[in-house]
Amino acid sequence: MRMRKKKWALPFLQEHSEVALQNPIHLKSRWNTVSDQRPIHLEIGVGKGGYINQMALQHPDAFWVGIEKDVNVVCIAVKNFLNQENDNELFITNDASELEQWFDKGEIDVIHLNFSDPWPKKGYRKRRLSSDGFVSKYHDILKENGKIILKTDNKILFEFSVVEILKLYFVLEEISVDFRREEHQEDAITEYEAKFMALNQPIYRAIFKKI
Amino acid sequence: MRMRKKKWALPFLQEHSEVALQNPIHLKSRWNTVSDQRPIHLEIGVGKGGYINQMALQHPDAFWVGIEKDVNVVCIAVKNFLNQENDNELFITNDASELEQWFDKGEIDVIHLNFSDPWPKKGYRKRRLSSDGFVSKYHDILKENGKIILKTDNKILFEFSVVEILKLYFVLEEISVDFRREEHQEDAITEYEAKFMALNQPIYRAIFKKI
Repeated sequence: MRMRKKKWALPFLQEHSEVALQNPIHLKSRWNTVSDQRPIHLEIGVGKGGYINQMALQHPDAFWVGIEKDVNVVCIAVKNFLNQENDNELFITNDASELEQWFDKGEIDVIHLNFSDPWPKKGYRKRRLSSDGFVSKYHDILKENGKIILKTDNKILFEFSVVEILKLYFVLEEISVDFRREEHQEDAITEYEAKFMALNQPIYRAIFKKI
Repeated sequence: MRMRKKKWALPFLQEHSEVALQNPIHLKSRWNTVSDQRPIHLEIGVGKGGYINQMALQHPDAFWVGIEKDVNVVCIAVKNFLNQENDNELFITNDASELEQWFDKGEIDVIHLNFSDPWPKKGYRKRRLSSDGFVSKYHDILKENGKIILKTDNKILFEFSVVEILKLYFVLEEISVDFRREEHQEDAITEYEAKFMALNQPIYRAIFKKI
């Protein structure tokens, strides 16, 4: 979702560079010290941060890292986080394709992909966050038995992602073609997700385990 | 779907025992001669045969074998087939759990599971045609690169089946969470399927390849 340009976004992010990192190459292989030995959850494409901010509050036993390249939305994610009480979060305000510069092999426990841009046109498949180029990077930075949890309303993206991820040394641990037909209090509902639920449209979700 | 008992069912099937086989152990490892070297498609649980009869007409380049244990429905499948012009079909009027007595390892090209009984209660999972006991038999009788094509309206059965089948040396070749959103003239619409389509409910489908 594109947002209007915000004049305050960049200065605000620079002012809070202790939680809004631009290029944290110095943390590579040192995330354990940042997370204080807690498992690290990485959400790629956090948007306005509705999911990660809620999950970090709900799961203080984990450390949450959110990546978002659009400064006009991530500024809101950071702002909302700063208004919360928890301190188990960090943001990276940069493009996820640089992932391997910030994380070492096996540093991450869980990767979350929520309602990623489906890039529906065939020529743009490589831009999908679940295309093989990205997935092989996820495989690298995930621990043994680490997981990718993917959630979307988009049929085409879901079908593509399941086949694509299973090609690359992941096994399917769970799949749901209507995740919200049952209560899942352990999992935060994003703003975007709530809209689809209100329209009675199914939410698709799958969990993949690294092998 | 249970049907009322039909008095004519058993005598009719006995009369047409050349196409309605009860226990074809004599054909094990000889299906190639029956199929005249054509690839063999096996549908398990054909019901009244709407799918297999239409597919056999549409795809004369293949040989179609249908299994159905309920004599009160398979009699209709056989009757309708006998009223068609094609001769590339056979029925087995028996329980699919006896599969390995009729087919040798690697004899089958494709297995079709259409709208199988979901057996929703947890205690009856083993009865699902996509539970591991059945799937390992399918694996045995399928050729290298042979396929299972599963189609259902039932969310729970679909989610269960995808995870279960991928545990057992199959890879996911294709998945659709709304198969009928596009035209698929190559695939027959079963009576049951048409009802769900009329209600605008999604049809789930997946193709698994033996590895």
